[in-house]
Amino acid sequence: MIEAAIPSKAEVQKSYEAFKAKGLKLNLTRGKLASKQLDLSTDLLALPGASDYMAEGATDCRNYGGLQGLAEARRLFAGMMGAPADQIIVANNSSLALMHDVIAYSLLKGTCDSPAPWSKGEIAFLCPVPGYDRHFKICEDYGIRMINVALNDDGPDMREVERLVASDASIKGIWCVPKYSNPTGAVYSDSVVERLASMKAAAPDFRVFWDNAYSVHHLTSERVQIANLLELCAVHGNPNRAFVFASTSKITLAGSGLALFAGSRANVKWLLDRMTPRTIGPDKVNQLRHVRFLKNEAGILAVMDRHRALIAPKFDKVLEIFDRELAGIPGVSWTRPKGGYFISLEVPKGCARRVVALAKDAGVELTPAGSTHPYGKDPEDRTIRIAPTFPDLPEVATAAEGVAICVQLAVAEKAA
Amino acid sequence: MIEAAIPSKAEVQKSYEAFKAKGLKLNLTRGKLASKQLDLSTDLLALPGASDYMAEGATDCRNYGGLQGLAEARRLFAGMMGAPADQIIVANNSSLALMHDVIAYSLLKGTCDSPAPWSKGEIAFLCPVPGYDRHFKICEDYGIRMINVALNDDGPDMREVERLVASDASIKGIWCVPKYSNPTGAVYSDSVVERLASMKAAAPDFRVFWDNAYSVHHLTSERVQIANLLELCAVHGNPNRAFVFASTSKITLAGSGLALFAGSRANVKWLLDRMTPRTIGPDKVNQLRHVRFLKNEAGILAVMDRHRALIAPKFDKVLEIFDRELAGIPGVSWTRPKGGYFISLEVPKGCARRVVALAKDAGVELTPAGSTHPYGKDPEDRTIRIAPTFPDLPEVATAAEGVAICVQLAVAEKAA
Repeated sequence: MIEAAIPSKAEVQKSYEAFKAKGLKLNLTRGKLASKQLDLSTDLLALPGASDYMAEGATDCRNYGGLQGLAEARRLFAGMMGAPADQIIVANNSSLALMHDVIAYSLLKGTCDSPAPWSKGEIAFLCPVPGYDRHFKICEDYGIRMINVALNDDGPDMREVERLVASDASIKGIWCVPKYSNPTGAVYSDSVVERLASMKAAAPDFRVFWDNAYSVHHLTSERVQIANLLELCAVHGNPNRAFVFASTSKITLAGSGLALFAGSRANVKWLLDRMTPRTIGPDKVNQLRHVRFLKNEAGILAVMDRHRALIAPKFDKVLEIFDRELAGIPGVSWTRPKGGYFISLEVPKGCARRVVALAKDAGVELTPAGSTHPYGKDPEDRTIRIAPTFPDLPEVATAAEGVAICVQLAVAEKAA
Repeated sequence: MIEAAIPSKAEVQKSYEAFKAKGLKLNLTRGKLASKQLDLSTDLLALPGASDYMAEGATDCRNYGGLQGLAEARRLFAGMMGAPADQIIVANNSSLALMHDVIAYSLLKGTCDSPAPWSKGEIAFLCPVPGYDRHFKICEDYGIRMINVALNDDGPDMREVERLVASDASIKGIWCVPKYSNPTGAVYSDSVVERLASMKAAAPDFRVFWDNAYSVHHLTSERVQIANLLELCAVHGNPNRAFVFASTSKITLAGSGLALFAGSRANVKWLLDRMTPRTIGPDKVNQLRHVRFLKNEAGILAVMDRHRALIAPKFDKVLEIFDRELAGIPGVSWTRPKGGYFISLEVPKGCARRVVALAKDAGVELTPAGSTHPYGKDPEDRTIRIAPTFPDLPEVATAAEGVAICVQLAVAEKAA
């Protein structure tokens, strides 16, 4: 009965050749914003305006200084970060850079709880998979051993996480995208967040790298909420465990937004101390620009509603096509995210690379298979990340149809 | 005869008390831009404008990407950097951050010529003194041993530099501010630049950190030129020796400018490779803003002429007061810089800290004595850095008068 769902290889091959003959050039590789999404922040391009450069505390935003970021910018993001303004640092345009720097500082100097710089020994990070390639790349680059743990619908496999973290003092961190995870859209349950906050760690300087990249990036009318890791860490006597990151890259302008950090007072002091030799301060004019444009939390949510109106139809279209073309094929499944930037497509074991190669030949660029896993190695070669935000809706539809054909063909080839 | 120039202690004490009674609060600590200097770049605050966001190569500046910086931004600064556009990287708002990161990458991974990461052994940097406190702070923070070498009027004492660099493989770098040096205003002679380029280095990965912070920051009608280190390094078979840094912090907006790097092709590739895990790209909108505002090299020089018109009178005023109040006092001398942001005041041995303390008590904040030297230790306690750009002209005059009285008093105390 299941066999009936698999189209014949000849039939699919024909569809594939027809698709390929269109000579398309489509790109679903990265979570980039579509031009129309960037247009939502057009006002930023002329802000703050010629006469507006003073911030609170008689701060001339044009001059040097202000390492922690503007007070009003820190307040603006307090709700989103789940932290008081004085426990927030607003930096330049890249939260990835902030995460990198926190790791580089920890390697060179150690955290505020480290007995020694991390680089003095072999260290490891837990990597829930599938996950975000750029997290893994930082670890790979600095020789930080990565240990895969399964990412379930409600967060990482906590029994495994607890077992490893409690027993291995070389494990210094875990990468988490707790809401609308990249790429599966998983949302960490309250129980998982609490267990991350409360679990026993062998390393005194164990850290949860909480990349809350999609905290307000809803795709449905449900604004999913998650538990506050920072507060729970304090409640459970591990106040310095949480390093919280976010950015406005997918709220305002992808390349010209603000990166955000939140942590305990001790962590904030530590990071500011570490940043002090590096820079006199961030680009405060860009922070003022964002304060003027977004205004307050309601302003953030309003612009996110407009993003949703532009991109939710693209996700819906991909899901509609996958539902139509791929339903019932054994070993094929995909996520239906309530937010974030990706759909994760699972294909039968050993087929992901083939699907990506077929798609490439047919003019549809996908994120390389394996990139969702440490060292670019998806042990089962099953996971494909679909990023539908950047192309126009008709292009997304065409690309999704192409991907579906490639999946059918790879499955048929394997069955042959 | 010389004694005649020293005022009596009682007399000076009276002047000091009178000055102190004014209850002033003046700050000459840092090379900050005056508000009127920042006003020169007011246009930046509304640029690029709502409809201008596309750069060369169909680059949407608002989106992710473009690690090396906009092509037009790299061309804009090619002359200033003395390098072709493809050997330039345009980054975010802080050249100090670029220098820090180059050192952090070298510590963690090594340069493109390093047999091992710098952090694998004890390393050292040569520090021409007096020099820039923030250079020294990076070294101190990461435990890089600093070795003082004398900075003469034409650059560092090259016999000493050559001797040390040739004989000690742990010496990995030298800090240089080659034009209008911080704080003395020294300009490296062609011969010194050539010797830096050609000298034998025991370390295969020895680097000259060429912080050309004041390359167009002239204070006189003479636009002083220096030799091109990058080219000379190539000529002398040490193509990767030069790491060239600059920024627009003192051209446009101090906190919202662009940081610049130039190097050999191998160094640029190395740095881009190192930056790749850290960030997807710089704030390209700010780069476009600068391209639109500065337009070309003539535009850069034009804005620098306007800076000069605002700040040269402040330098002249300080020199006029020092000439009047301090001439002939044994052991007291000061520089007459042709550019840059500082005057370096030398006082008799053991007097610098006392002068700074006296000034502070009288409401004139100076850069802490010692900050011009590694570890904050001026071995002779002689050097005081004067930063006259930030206060208004009348305040600069008052502050300089106060400083002169403090010098007289410290000298009189010592003579007593």
